Amino acid sequence: MIPIDIDAILPDIKELIEKENKGALQNILIDLHPADIAQIFSHLNKDERAYFFTVIPTHLASKVLAELDPPLIEELTEGLGINKIAAIVSEMDSDDAADFVSALPEELVPEILKRIPREESDEIKELLHYEEDTAGGIMALEYVALPATATVNQAIEEIRRLRAKQEISHVYSVYVVDEENHLLGTVSMTDLVLADGNTLLKDIMETDIPTVSTDMDQEEVANIFRKYDLVSMPVVDKENHLVGRITVDDIVDVMEEEGAEDMAYIAGAPDEEITEESTFKLARARLPWLLVAFFGETISALLLNQFNATLQQKVMVAFFIPIVMAMGGSTAQQASVIVIRGLATGDLSVRDTTKRLIKEFRISFFNSLFFAALIFIIVYLWDTVFFAGILAVSIFVVINNAAIIGALVPLTFKRLKIDPALAAAPFISTANDILGILIYLSITTFILHLGMGK
Amino acid sequence: MIPIDIDAILPDIKELIEKENKGALQNILIDLHPADIAQIFSHLNKDERAYFFTVIPTHLASKVLAELDPPLIEELTEGLGINKIAAIVSEMDSDDAADFVSALPEELVPEILKRIPREESDEIKELLHYEEDTAGGIMALEYVALPATATVNQAIEEIRRLRAKQEISHVYSVYVVDEENHLLGTVSMTDLVLADGNTLLKDIMETDIPTVSTDMDQEEVANIFRKYDLVSMPVVDKENHLVGRITVDDIVDVMEEEGAEDMAYIAGAPDEEITEESTFKLARARLPWLLVAFFGETISALLLNQFNATLQQKVMVAFFIPIVMAMGGSTAQQASVIVIRGLATGDLSVRDTTKRLIKEFRISFFNSLFFAALIFIIVYLWDTVFFAGILAVSIFVVINNAAIIGALVPLTFKRLKIDPALAAAPFISTANDILGILIYLSITTFILHLGMGK
Repeated sequence: MIPIDIDAILPDIKELIEKENKGALQNILIDLHPADIAQIFSHLNKDERAYFFTVIPTHLASKVLAELDPPLIEELTEGLGINKIAAIVSEMDSDDAADFVSALPEELVPEILKRIPREESDEIKELLHYEEDTAGGIMALEYVALPATATVNQAIEEIRRLRAKQEISHVYSVYVVDEENHLLGTVSMTDLVLADGNTLLKDIMETDIPTVSTDMDQEEVANIFRKYDLVSMPVVDKENHLVGRITVDDIVDVMEEEGAEDMAYIAGAPDEEITEESTFKLARARLPWLLVAFFGETISALLLNQFNATLQQKVMVAFFIPIVMAMGGSTAQQASVIVIRGLATGDLSVRDTTKRLIKEFRISFFNSLFFAALIFIIVYLWDTVFFAGILAVSIFVVINNAAIIGALVPLTFKRLKIDPALAAAPFISTANDILGILIYLSITTFILHLGMGK
Repeated sequence: MIPIDIDAILPDIKELIEKENKGALQNILIDLHPADIAQIFSHLNKDERAYFFTVIPTHLASKVLAELDPPLIEELTEGLGINKIAAIVSEMDSDDAADFVSALPEELVPEILKRIPREESDEIKELLHYEEDTAGGIMALEYVALPATATVNQAIEEIRRLRAKQEISHVYSVYVVDEENHLLGTVSMTDLVLADGNTLLKDIMETDIPTVSTDMDQEEVANIFRKYDLVSMPVVDKENHLVGRITVDDIVDVMEEEGAEDMAYIAGAPDEEITEESTFKLARARLPWLLVAFFGETISALLLNQFNATLQQKVMVAFFIPIVMAMGGSTAQQASVIVIRGLATGDLSVRDTTKRLIKEFRISFFNSLFFAALIFIIVYLWDTVFFAGILAVSIFVVINNAAIIGALVPLTFKRLKIDPALAAAPFISTANDILGILIYLSITTFILHLGMGK
């Protein structure tokens, strides 16, 4: 029974792979959904994967490959001949086939397209044309479309015909178009079931329907699905011609993908696949974020050098550099993550900038007073009231400054049409480290110069 | 035409609210989807919201409230009488009604339930019984169930009857049950449309179907929907009795919610609503993360105090504290975010711990060599070859140490059944700061003690 507990069957599968027991493995495969088989691959090592893949029959292999991440697709197809790959591609739906082909080495693509039926290769070529993360990039070309004068019975016949050709499996809506393929409306399956067979589609179609154009960003498409509780949505070109349809299962994947990307960016990491094996590729992908942190903190070092005299005069000043950095960094991350998320879902827009900054300032004002008081007490007990005052003022200024930066930078990125999630780390945190040190040591130097804080 | 561009109509709406032009506002409302109206609320200020809500007719208000976040629900219903709230609740689907009622002050709930029809209040009570973030908490009780011996025509009649009662709107599957309501299988709408009217449901039902029990965590439920490309799924109790159904539009909301929560936790922030207005509530919610950072870095300060002599001897050592902290922190966040995400999606399990640690170590080894070389050059040009060596070794050790901690801590949290996303910040980053300082200053002190690094 689905859902399968992968963890429970994995040890058996690993053992059978080691014994190269093809028959027993194929017996297990019969009961598994392609998505389960795909998930098993991500828990195997490279050699296990290579053998396990040879056990899977072709018709199932195409379904499994449609579920896998690009690094695994590349790895598993490496040993396959071009004819075998072409056979796999021609068994896939247009959208899966296009995604699969994009994961292969570029030079193979024309060779593969030559070897599959013309109609299918034309569809794949059309889809490859669109940017991967747009409505065009996630739509499929398999849909049911009929003229407004068609009857419910004709619509049912058309679904039956397309299904027999294995063009479609599940249908959620029938699209109604005019002679030039302009979208006029949709009829849901529920309405189709309940209507009399001789009813005309135009009499039961819904005309006030959400549509998207091919170039809309996939994250925006996902927001529309979420907002209007959709299961499928037609994609149209600039002249409202029907060109494809997006179903919610693809949107669920998009949300997962975009969520992973935003999360990774917020943490200052590339959006990598967990299945990627190449150490060099992974290390290189993570390098840019580390480089920004490295050179940002080199500036911190140069800045501290400027305050050499202050640090010489009172070495204790150095003890509190980490706390100043951490309070600023944490506050900025809290402010930025709520703004980044709000911008991604559309609950927040750049119009709300002033309102949001005021809100963040009010929150940080409260917390900065709290931590200023806390550090005052700690440093007062440890050292002088002067130095306690210096740290209290520094923490107060640093926290409020960090909140404003944390909220303002992603809003500014959005205005400049840069992904706001890229703002958080390491830019905001590095900038806050530098500013925090500058604020803290400027205040300290000023007070020490007055001869009060020794 | 949907989708509406909220940003474009917002200025007009704000102006009409200011003029208190009820008629014109209601004219605009006619063309809007309840989800659009809900989104407009999040861009208005408190006074605007209060007036705008009075403009919305009751039947629409219940749909709009079903789309709003708890803080706004609380705010908008504050002024409403208990009878009005009860009228709103009785227009909602069972799952929306239960969510809505949970957002209200607890003492109101029994009063509201008394004022709505018995059947509906029983349903809501049943749903309130389940934990909010489980399958039971997100399921609805409105579904179409028939015996295995029913015909396709009978199923269509049943859908028509329930729809006329406004019990259901869209149907994706018909559930087949025995006399004791045990789930036997499902029939998709596509299969229902294509089958002959006299076909028995048992002859076309799918029996190998995914189901979940009421107590399954909603994140796991979402993973099952995503894995098997589902649109709806039946919920069963321990004895396989059908108790409800979950539809993909709720799953899309769950993914958005869980994604926001994970993202916030990774950044060291509470999972707050962007619409929450109370400064005090927000400041208090953010405080725990800041407190961990504060006390963690207080330990850093005490630790630096232990190395007072070293810092006195060579104040330049202090200049590089930020870079050591940042390189460790960034590396740990990169390692932890990929592990946290993998655990959330199920692509990674605690079984893979050793494999994952080796992979992270290989990546960090590469990057640590790179940055050790880079800092060696910079410090060599600035100061002595000895101090350059100290920093190169420190950066090398700190980066590799951080990668192991970053990967190991969330895996350990998962093993201990604590949300791994809670591990990242500020625990991992604070621990890394302390360890980074300890490693760096221990190495420095040791070498300076040998009298080499002056």
